[in-house]
Amino acid sequence: MSLPDFDLGDVYLDHIAVATKDLERSVSVFTKLGLKFSEEREVVEDQKVITAFAKVDGRANLELLEPLNEQGPIQKYLEKKGEGIHHLCFAVKDVNISMEKLKKEGFIFIYDEPRVGAHECLVNFIHPKSTGGILIEVSQKRG
Amino acid sequence: MSLPDFDLGDVYLDHIAVATKDLERSVSVFTKLGLKFSEEREVVEDQKVITAFAKVDGRANLELLEPLNEQGPIQKYLEKKGEGIHHLCFAVKDVNISMEKLKKEGFIFIYDEPRVGAHECLVNFIHPKSTGGILIEVSQKRG
Repeated sequence: MSLPDFDLGDVYLDHIAVATKDLERSVSVFTKLGLKFSEEREVVEDQKVITAFAKVDGRANLELLEPLNEQGPIQKYLEKKGEGIHHLCFAVKDVNISMEKLKKEGFIFIYDEPRVGAHECLVNFIHPKSTGGILIEVSQKRG
Repeated sequence: MSLPDFDLGDVYLDHIAVATKDLERSVSVFTKLGLKFSEEREVVEDQKVITAFAKVDGRANLELLEPLNEQGPIQKYLEKKGEGIHHLCFAVKDVNISMEKLKKEGFIFIYDEPRVGAHECLVNFIHPKSTGGILIEVSQKRG
């Protein structure tokens, strides 16, 4: 893979890394979510890990979230866990169809019905206990 | 923005969300890392948050990390924090030049010198205390 012609010092997101106790279980989780993993499993001796990589199609954004007040889930998260990465969001064509499909795969959703998120998207969240510790949003764009 | 023609049920990464106590401080941190934020600040009433978005250029991967043994930083992370998102990695052209530049911006690096990461990249890590709680890898591809 050759590097694009960025100006010196320019950066791009190369990967998001997930710590897991069971690599193949996590591969299975994200495969169910639609990601395609390389067959390769690489050991990184320096960090004492074995790794698996999946391409994620790229029109990603970084979203920063600051609580508006003392209520709401982000405020609770900050109080409990502190600042940091809160969730990953995957876009889907139809959030209701995705919920139905993913529930059959064993994923547990936080809300019974989709809600309105940023940019007027219809969203729901998969509970971290069914994904290996990662809060995952599924989001349907509208309009 | 129109959606690409994915098959029903296919997903793509839409965003990575970061919980912060101070939106504009976090905008400043990621701007220094090379991201470009929209001027818009959107309130999401349902989640009681104010948000800022930056496009991240997309050739991203999801990397899963499982410890090889009882040593190493990922094993320590799992013991302390449990499973979940561990770090974000940004690719740079020259890790030494980026380290020099980012140190001048106040970022604190974990290693004095770059080390060898997955895919034989030269890497270093920015300590979460200088980024608002997020471990950030900078990585130079070789060969």
